[in-house]
Amino acid sequence: MDVTALLERGRTLATPVLRAAIDRLAPPMDTVAAYHFGWIDAEGNPADGDGGKAVRPALAVLSAQAAGAAPEVGVPGAVAVELVHNFSLLHDDLMDGDEQRRHRDTVWKVHGPAQAILVGDALFALANELLLELGTVEAGRATRRLTSATRALIDGQAQDISYEHRERVTVEECLEMEGNKTGALLACACSIGAVLGGADDHTADTLEKYGYHLGLAFQAVDDLLGIWGDPEATGKRPWSDLRQRKKSLPVVAALAAGGPSSERLGELLAEDAKASDFENFSEEEFAARAALIEEAGGREWTAQEARRQHTTAIDALDSIPMPDRVRAELVALADFVVVRKR
Amino acid sequence: MDVTALLERGRTLATPVLRAAIDRLAPPMDTVAAYHFGWIDAEGNPADGDGGKAVRPALAVLSAQAAGAAPEVGVPGAVAVELVHNFSLLHDDLMDGDEQRRHRDTVWKVHGPAQAILVGDALFALANELLLELGTVEAGRATRRLTSATRALIDGQAQDISYEHRERVTVEECLEMEGNKTGALLACACSIGAVLGGADDHTADTLEKYGYHLGLAFQAVDDLLGIWGDPEATGKRPWSDLRQRKKSLPVVAALAAGGPSSERLGELLAEDAKASDFENFSEEEFAARAALIEEAGGREWTAQEARRQHTTAIDALDSIPMPDRVRAELVALADFVVVRKR
Repeated sequence: MDVTALLERGRTLATPVLRAAIDRLAPPMDTVAAYHFGWIDAEGNPADGDGGKAVRPALAVLSAQAAGAAPEVGVPGAVAVELVHNFSLLHDDLMDGDEQRRHRDTVWKVHGPAQAILVGDALFALANELLLELGTVEAGRATRRLTSATRALIDGQAQDISYEHRERVTVEECLEMEGNKTGALLACACSIGAVLGGADDHTADTLEKYGYHLGLAFQAVDDLLGIWGDPEATGKRPWSDLRQRKKSLPVVAALAAGGPSSERLGELLAEDAKASDFENFSEEEFAARAALIEEAGGREWTAQEARRQHTTAIDALDSIPMPDRVRAELVALADFVVVRKR
Repeated sequence: MDVTALLERGRTLATPVLRAAIDRLAPPMDTVAAYHFGWIDAEGNPADGDGGKAVRPALAVLSAQAAGAAPEVGVPGAVAVELVHNFSLLHDDLMDGDEQRRHRDTVWKVHGPAQAILVGDALFALANELLLELGTVEAGRATRRLTSATRALIDGQAQDISYEHRERVTVEECLEMEGNKTGALLACACSIGAVLGGADDHTADTLEKYGYHLGLAFQAVDDLLGIWGDPEATGKRPWSDLRQRKKSLPVVAALAAGGPSSERLGELLAEDAKASDFENFSEEEFAARAALIEEAGGREWTAQEARRQHTTAIDALDSIPMPDRVRAELVALADFVVVRKR
């Protein structure tokens, strides 16, 4: 199964609709959004930027096919989910003070905080607009599911922010946060095409279950890449999540494990929380923390968790009928999510 | 006609539903939102704050009655519009750097920029959630209208920000911006109850027209209060809009008028745009600018514009049938909007 072709198909179907949607924005928001999506550079010249992996559009299109509809039926859903995803990136990058995304300066860094807020708001509104202007009962149901996912996304960001200021976060709290922040919208991507295609609630809920656990697998891998990922591939700084004091899965799992490395890690992170020069810590200091996380078992536990969630996601698909080819494609995308390097 | 009673009825019907909606937010967003609405103070103690004039809830409830439905039918719409309005206040105060609203420190000032962004996002999502969970065709139509209004609101804020950096803005550009920023959501408030009550598109569009022009009248009065309002009543600093270099109606009308005062004002504002110590200008310096605006006719033109929009709003109501009492109440609210002091 060629995952690259699957991702490419989702991107090819969704991009023209996404571009047309962005064209609706009043200046300068259209330009700022085009920069964010990598279509132009900071000076406004055309660019062939990396618009992300496009996992969500591929899933939304497959979701329509899982319900027996044509892939095109999923496209407004694919674009709406992509808009909500990018709304959250614009706002989260500003809230988190992240200066880089997809190998480029973030929007607030280039165009200022006000544009990051405003264009994020506009993308969120546009997502609802695209769905609701379909004017169908199915579109109303899809919008309702997208709204629930967006609320969960916002809850997750609130938890993520509050955890950064807390000394201890349990593994359960971390999984809940990641389920909100990543699972809910991926769940929506996996059901929205089916909902637009007229699927019943059982089918939609099952596809959401697949997507939710796929999202948790995705996030577990993201958490591994956030510490041990290759900066060349991820586009983030080395030890990115450690620099931000993120209580990600490897960290909370290592802290929960007990034993000498776990305890030493706990002491170090407690000191770090008070350190005034944390911003200037050397590569070696972050490497030492990463090594302790690994020795305490946080890296291996997270890798296993990714595989557990991957299995749960795929098993969920057994409870609904769908074309064999579509099932194989959903499995292939799940496989891709856990082995990706970026 | 007792406008105070009308406003109070809207508030009484909407507030319990609004409070229940805010209770759905995950901590600490519920607390931050409760602070914004004036229900608690910065320390979290119960407060009896000024939650605003509540013009929108009163209009949404009347809107249901204009379509022959019970006032209660308009309540989810009233609350949804209030949530979108407050989403925009949270984000706009942060973008504009406004430190005071309703006589209190703004949310970003008390709880930080991240919470202002996040809680704004949450209120926006909640607005859609409240409507869509009604699960009716009417609710889908209402959400679509609310989404259009929200998009216009965001366009208006984009224009408002860009105008602050421009030397000249035409009266037409200013009216377009104010139509987006204030007219569209007030238009939605005036139609949403009717839409939820099953009104046809002609009725809804007519009520939107009434609301749109009412919004422009409202904003013209706001622009007058933003320069000449009593700080005790408005809760803003003296010469508030001049301090922010707002290209509001009195300013653009004065600049467009021609003549010695208009030209002198243009020269002064051009110098101000480059002044590095603008933040420290004295009361007298702002008073001198306000006097020039008045001498050039900007104050009188804006007051007349408020009356023109008021008349257009009321005349729009002639094209649809509605109970006499409801019509009289809509007229009374329009009258209130143009004579208010805050």
